[in-house]
Amino acid sequence: MAQPQLEFWFDFGSTYSYPASQRIQALAREAEVQVRFRPFMLGAIFKAQGWSTSPFNLYPAKGRYMWRDLARICTELSLPLVRPEPFPQNSLLAARVAVAAADEAWLGDYCVQVFREAFAHGRPIADAGIIQSVVERFATDALRFLELAQTAEIKERLRAETERAGEMGIFGAPTFVAADGELFWGNDRLESALAWARSTHAAQRS
Amino acid sequence: MAQPQLEFWFDFGSTYSYPASQRIQALAREAEVQVRFRPFMLGAIFKAQGWSTSPFNLYPAKGRYMWRDLARICTELSLPLVRPEPFPQNSLLAARVAVAAADEAWLGDYCVQVFREAFAHGRPIADAGIIQSVVERFATDALRFLELAQTAEIKERLRAETERAGEMGIFGAPTFVAADGELFWGNDRLESALAWARSTHAAQRS
Repeated sequence: MAQPQLEFWFDFGSTYSYPASQRIQALAREAEVQVRFRPFMLGAIFKAQGWSTSPFNLYPAKGRYMWRDLARICTELSLPLVRPEPFPQNSLLAARVAVAAADEAWLGDYCVQVFREAFAHGRPIADAGIIQSVVERFATDALRFLELAQTAEIKERLRAETERAGEMGIFGAPTFVAADGELFWGNDRLESALAWARSTHAAQRS
Repeated sequence: MAQPQLEFWFDFGSTYSYPASQRIQALAREAEVQVRFRPFMLGAIFKAQGWSTSPFNLYPAKGRYMWRDLARICTELSLPLVRPEPFPQNSLLAARVAVAAADEAWLGDYCVQVFREAFAHGRPIADAGIIQSVVERFATDALRFLELAQTAEIKERLRAETERAGEMGIFGAPTFVAADGELFWGNDRLESALAWARSTHAAQRS
């Protein structure tokens, strides 16, 4: 029988997507919900709202609070946290590789690891060498995914994903989307999103 | 022995301050934390960030999500929810009356009830008659508080409170502030804020 579905929309540069990415696989397994990782370019959404960079940079008080809040969250989860410099990191290559690997069983593990590179180790995820080393953990033909990432088809597919995110009403990351289109924004809504996915799935089958 | 303290900074027009206001007294009692209600003018903080109105109005996707998220939260808490029109309500009078009643034992109950007028009944809280009827629940000399609210001293005190909110790094509401200055933003951080207030208080005394 098919499991309930939940889409995890995120940007590899998004701060609150980091703890969400580290939590979602175990929580989803426990809840028996199938998660689909869907990277998109949050910067393009911000640009459409008139923002040239992250609101955490544009609004200093909001930014200061976010870093403090994120530190508290990571402490509670025993997750290491390094502040990526510059912030936000350019996530384009990492996202394109994820789109190229959309059908691979290791997509989720790749995403989890890219977040660790950025936020646990402070490594530059715009660097092809870093991304290649992550893919090599999961695939013997890592270079193929790096090459695919540079094709017009993959670039266009990521653009389409970002456009779709905007059409769905996504304005920040992480956003969890249930099969019925219900949106849940923020790492702190992950549990609610999983519960929603389960209960709507059960209702549809009864 | 003195209880741990927590400040509850809010604007009567703020949507997420509504569930926070309805939850905080019982949760604080349970946690043995003393809460101080501190209304301020969020619109002035927004203006300083270059926003002419609530970000929920400026950014439609964010606004649509907020109303949906708030409805889910209120459903879970069995709180009625009416969308105030216009949004946000002008909260100036309600806040000035709260400042005038800062030393009254019923300040918290007054604030809880003003939020109910706005968000459970959809009543215009800028209306002096509505605010007076709330004060009359708690004080026999209700008119005195309405009159005080129009004095230069109280107006100035509310301005000073708002300025202080900005200086403390407050950029949204609700914000909970522990005795050591730690900030917690959002209704969903209330439990963490109470736990923080307790643990820092215990650490200071040991």
